[in-house]
Amino acid sequence: MGTARLTIDLNAVINNWRALDATTNCETAAVVKANGYGLGAPSVVRALAKAGARTFFVAAAEEGVILRTALGSGPTINVFSGHMDGDTDIIRSSELTPMINSVDQMLRHVEALPAAPFGIQLDSGMNRLGMEPEEWSAVRDIALSQNPTLIMSHLACADEPDHPMNRHQLKAFREMTDGLDVPCSLAATGGVLLGPEYHFDMTRPGIGLYGGMPYEDAQTVVTLDIPVIQTRTVAQGETVGYGNRWVAEQDSTVATIAAGYADGLIRAMGNGARLYAGDIQVPVIGRISMDLITADISHLPEEPTTLQLLGTHQSVDDVADFAGTIGYEILTSMGNRYARTYLE
Amino acid sequence: MGTARLTIDLNAVINNWRALDATTNCETAAVVKANGYGLGAPSVVRALAKAGARTFFVAAAEEGVILRTALGSGPTINVFSGHMDGDTDIIRSSELTPMINSVDQMLRHVEALPAAPFGIQLDSGMNRLGMEPEEWSAVRDIALSQNPTLIMSHLACADEPDHPMNRHQLKAFREMTDGLDVPCSLAATGGVLLGPEYHFDMTRPGIGLYGGMPYEDAQTVVTLDIPVIQTRTVAQGETVGYGNRWVAEQDSTVATIAAGYADGLIRAMGNGARLYAGDIQVPVIGRISMDLITADISHLPEEPTTLQLLGTHQSVDDVADFAGTIGYEILTSMGNRYARTYLE
Repeated sequence: MGTARLTIDLNAVINNWRALDATTNCETAAVVKANGYGLGAPSVVRALAKAGARTFFVAAAEEGVILRTALGSGPTINVFSGHMDGDTDIIRSSELTPMINSVDQMLRHVEALPAAPFGIQLDSGMNRLGMEPEEWSAVRDIALSQNPTLIMSHLACADEPDHPMNRHQLKAFREMTDGLDVPCSLAATGGVLLGPEYHFDMTRPGIGLYGGMPYEDAQTVVTLDIPVIQTRTVAQGETVGYGNRWVAEQDSTVATIAAGYADGLIRAMGNGARLYAGDIQVPVIGRISMDLITADISHLPEEPTTLQLLGTHQSVDDVADFAGTIGYEILTSMGNRYARTYLE
Repeated sequence: MGTARLTIDLNAVINNWRALDATTNCETAAVVKANGYGLGAPSVVRALAKAGARTFFVAAAEEGVILRTALGSGPTINVFSGHMDGDTDIIRSSELTPMINSVDQMLRHVEALPAAPFGIQLDSGMNRLGMEPEEWSAVRDIALSQNPTLIMSHLACADEPDHPMNRHQLKAFREMTDGLDVPCSLAATGGVLLGPEYHFDMTRPGIGLYGGMPYEDAQTVVTLDIPVIQTRTVAQGETVGYGNRWVAEQDSTVATIAAGYADGLIRAMGNGARLYAGDIQVPVIGRISMDLITADISHLPEEPTTLQLLGTHQSVDDVADFAGTIGYEILTSMGNRYARTYLE
């Protein structure tokens, strides 16, 4: 077994979805873009649909095709990037609902698929996706006459509850939607935690389902165990890894394990990262290689067969800290070489 | 079309392989681990085999299975992680050649597959994979009696030609192999460029085939064009993206494009990264999102339909610099969502 073992607890995903749903009085959708945040969209959506989720969000229409195959007819599949040039055929054949981001997209959609459902994405201040307030004013009446299924926007600073941008965006979104008889959605995971004002008719958690911050109470979803290829004694003064990065201060026992940055274990982690042998911390030493990591196991009572990077001892956010990034990137980078096991 | 287009020039891969081969008088193998450095191992190995490559290297036996399916019988497929617990069946069925890293692996291999080919990996100082000199002394006669196909080691500092570690490892490797009647290999791409002393009987370039440093003369292999989802005017003082990271110093035109860190565009890039619209540089602004990047296109004469991150204007190493990493990680992180086109 030359590859690491990634265990994905679908019950934990379901429990996280239910727990977030229980904090609101509206529908809770699920964001499963980027292959279900790296965990495997088909398995994740089948589990969530069984638990009651009826609406899913992806980034691109191509992702929606994979979801439709996994889900069959019935659930709604919304596409954040809307109706892009070249998307018409797959929007039709996979029954996707594009979140229209601009007048250009609106014209494209209405011309190509006049009776097909669509939503509207508005920009409430993030300036990334969605129609500006002026653009919306200009096309609003025409858009509403076509019966959009949803009007949504996205928060730029929801991970920081006290950031004034949250209230600013809430106000802007309300000004664009007050009095309209269309379901509205503003909140992803961070927005759910901001409280009822932000919930509207539908929330759309993503990261919170998968065990990442800002949802502190999330159950652990992923466990990553990496097999030891070999161990060796390294004498005081000898070096380990590329660029001779680590120098042994004393005679040490070093394990080489079978995963690296090509598996999404971001190279910036390097020194300072930790692994676990059972309950015992094990420091990563030297540079992360493409397929290999070295660790100092001198203090272990016996040679381990695997070392654990992710699990109950250490979350995706802990590992993100080692690399100076966020848990989202640790999840979505998870590698194709891992042997994946789904607990359900 | 909601996903970026990755174009992989297999002729450039072949030309790079031939050019590196022409600098030596020995066999040139090809390292295609990590799915051919992210480019798609099956396509890469079929092209290289057609061009004359007879030996390929992967990190794990599981990768070897994919190669054997792509190549059919004939070419040699060597596995750097050797013969690990659980590998026996696929080593046998896919006719793989493990590079034995330890006495434990040697015993496992000889007991499970007594007549099957194997190589020996020695540690010449990197302390990551391979037998230590003392270990090798102890099992050398037994190992040689089983007719290994190759004896190899790996350099820790080959990207730095003047690093004393190179000569130190060369000396150690020679001391362990002088006088033996077995083909030897020490050099990957960096080692090829260190000169003939490092070439022995086989070189094993990886990164140099794919257009990355330290092989400066490599032809460009990958081109990444990312579609524009929408453009907008951002007024002076407005912010763009998560955490309000970018603030418009003047009224600006901003494009949102369809790729992000879930596609391997490392989040650490952020500000300072550049894209290209034709020959014109376009700065990335704000934070890299999971599926989206924003760019300031105020200075462009017309709105682009795509922006280019990788290509003749900008190499994997240029992009690596934006993120504080190396070209290898840019390549091996390349995303599953890209629409891939192979030029051959």
